[in-house]
Amino acid sequence: MDYMKKSLEMHEIWKGKLETCPKMKVEDKTGLSLAYTPGVAAPCVEIQKDRSRSYDLTGKGNTVAVISDGSAVLGLGNIGAEASMPVMEGKCVLFKAFAGLNAVPLCINSTDVDEIVDTIYRISPSFGGINLEDFSAPRCFEIERRLKELCDIPVFHDDQHGTAIVLLAALKNALRLKELPLENARIVVCGAGAAGMAVSKILLDSGATDLTLVRKEGIICRGDPTLDPYQAEIALLTNKRLLSGGLEKAIEGCDVFIGVSAPNIVSSDMIRSMNPKPIVFSMANPVPEIMPDVAKKAGAYIIGTGRSDYPNQINNVLAFPGVFKGALKARARAITEKMKLAAADAIASLVSCDELAPDFIIPPPFDPRVSEAVADAVCKIAQGGGD
Amino acid sequence: MDYMKKSLEMHEIWKGKLETCPKMKVEDKTGLSLAYTPGVAAPCVEIQKDRSRSYDLTGKGNTVAVISDGSAVLGLGNIGAEASMPVMEGKCVLFKAFAGLNAVPLCINSTDVDEIVDTIYRISPSFGGINLEDFSAPRCFEIERRLKELCDIPVFHDDQHGTAIVLLAALKNALRLKELPLENARIVVCGAGAAGMAVSKILLDSGATDLTLVRKEGIICRGDPTLDPYQAEIALLTNKRLLSGGLEKAIEGCDVFIGVSAPNIVSSDMIRSMNPKPIVFSMANPVPEIMPDVAKKAGAYIIGTGRSDYPNQINNVLAFPGVFKGALKARARAITEKMKLAAADAIASLVSCDELAPDFIIPPPFDPRVSEAVADAVCKIAQGGGD
Repeated sequence: MDYMKKSLEMHEIWKGKLETCPKMKVEDKTGLSLAYTPGVAAPCVEIQKDRSRSYDLTGKGNTVAVISDGSAVLGLGNIGAEASMPVMEGKCVLFKAFAGLNAVPLCINSTDVDEIVDTIYRISPSFGGINLEDFSAPRCFEIERRLKELCDIPVFHDDQHGTAIVLLAALKNALRLKELPLENARIVVCGAGAAGMAVSKILLDSGATDLTLVRKEGIICRGDPTLDPYQAEIALLTNKRLLSGGLEKAIEGCDVFIGVSAPNIVSSDMIRSMNPKPIVFSMANPVPEIMPDVAKKAGAYIIGTGRSDYPNQINNVLAFPGVFKGALKARARAITEKMKLAAADAIASLVSCDELAPDFIIPPPFDPRVSEAVADAVCKIAQGGGD
Repeated sequence: MDYMKKSLEMHEIWKGKLETCPKMKVEDKTGLSLAYTPGVAAPCVEIQKDRSRSYDLTGKGNTVAVISDGSAVLGLGNIGAEASMPVMEGKCVLFKAFAGLNAVPLCINSTDVDEIVDTIYRISPSFGGINLEDFSAPRCFEIERRLKELCDIPVFHDDQHGTAIVLLAALKNALRLKELPLENARIVVCGAGAAGMAVSKILLDSGATDLTLVRKEGIICRGDPTLDPYQAEIALLTNKRLLSGGLEKAIEGCDVFIGVSAPNIVSSDMIRSMNPKPIVFSMANPVPEIMPDVAKKAGAYIIGTGRSDYPNQINNVLAFPGVFKGALKARARAITEKMKLAAADAIASLVSCDELAPDFIIPPPFDPRVSEAVADAVCKIAQGGGD
């Protein structure tokens, strides 16, 4: 099927992928008086007295905002507020379909960090959580950091943390198969945008000790004056051999390649230069860093991509619905590192020892157990206090 | 029924009065690929090329934001963002129930005019229209004025204009019965908040020539240095006899009393001091300026209130659903004075000559013809260019 053509047709028919549906009738005086005036004054007064009651008396506790400035949408770049809306609506559809959460798509007509932070903070009382979507790096790091400081609800940039959680889950199972502890794995992450930075951080948080991060300009190495502040910070924790050069140099002799960068930048020779039984997560979308069949031919042992037409699809939808569901259930004020690690564990452990195989390291996106398992794991950590 | 108690119980059960419902299934790869990646890139690109396509390809064209800062909620005053949410959700329910429009409740944790204007403007691309709700006067006037300048979608403060439209509709029919042209009617408006200011303006726009506006401190008269800028402006167009004093003074010898102020401030003697066959719209809620039976006994000819337990309920729900429906249908960039007057005419003319009677001057809130008639009238004006 030509998804582009068909999707455009369907969007013309849908005219918006979401509807707001009342849970009650207001067809007579009684209905109106309960859902609206005069009765509605009662829950208002109740919340005025105790703000936390908004979780019981309004939709706050099961509603997520999906917000973008349209600056880094799909592979399309900075396409602006209105043009990002179909993606935001789609993401909201997934929140409902995969976790039963209500979600509201919002796009912001500014790419100024201060304005974005102010705007989102000002409307945050309306929601139980905020999913940031498709904000370009490095702005996304500051936007998220500042919002986390300001807001008393979870703020989660899915392009960073959703990707990182699912990637970690896949890698854990891949390393189980390869019988290599994470601590001993030599890992290359290619791409220092939102996803690459977050993937690197979660791997370091999980115990990785040998990780090299590569950006367009080459291997990230401490002391390089051209690094942005976020890259400079992570440079202190990565590239312990102080390599310099390009991707080719980084990849040689490594066990794990993780690409969150650009199409077709990894060659068969590069795969051959890796350690035996290489793990290759080639997640650029829709065209990966190296096509799975090419990687396989070059000797890759386990291959994952972002695509649904190959095995081991590393898809954010395995993480964000359950992460928010669990955080909202616990009325968490933030999504912590511990919750993310617990989410990754929950996803990984849904693949049983019997099932685990090079072509099956992660549950498929439509595995109905996933969001509940993730939600439970996240909620448990949140209720235990988190980190 | 004790609406307060029952409403609180129902709000505990509802946990939010709205759900966001996807219009399609995403239960398999095809569903996901059409509603989300990769297919969703097609509508994104289309809107990037032509922003107006967002009306065809997203929910923009049938979605309204209902926004408050919680500063003037019901009779409760400044109760804050979270506590205003039950009202905003209720209003969204009415948008769907009465006009089939999707509506998103948003509350803002600031009462600063600049911050409110910035916040609403920044998220305006997400919506086809903005319904401002329960912002206190005189801040509401500046907020609306500035947003109308900034936004390319309709911005409508319902507490002002919704009330004004329905009031004008009721008054037109009342004056038909009384056989008094609006131009010749001596009118007193009591209350110089959001509703009182807007009611006065729409009556002046409709041809009223003898209108006196009364605030808490007394009759508004040009030159009074204690007036706020909005009151000072309207003072130039009202109180042509340059009366000073209190409500008692204003009401003496008038034909129409319109109260949008406070409970129980009009006495039987005041009604008796009005011209013969007085029209009394006593709309303070839930306790009117004078109770209908008291006004009747004192000689009132036609009586309207905001209450559902008396005849002639002057309820905003007769206006805002249709006004937005019509404006959105026409993809109007603003709701103009002409559209408001057309809306009032549409409501008034739904009462036929046969039906028109002192106890029946306005259609009841659940008359199913109203929102469509209002929408048609507004859309027609919008498509004709408006003013």
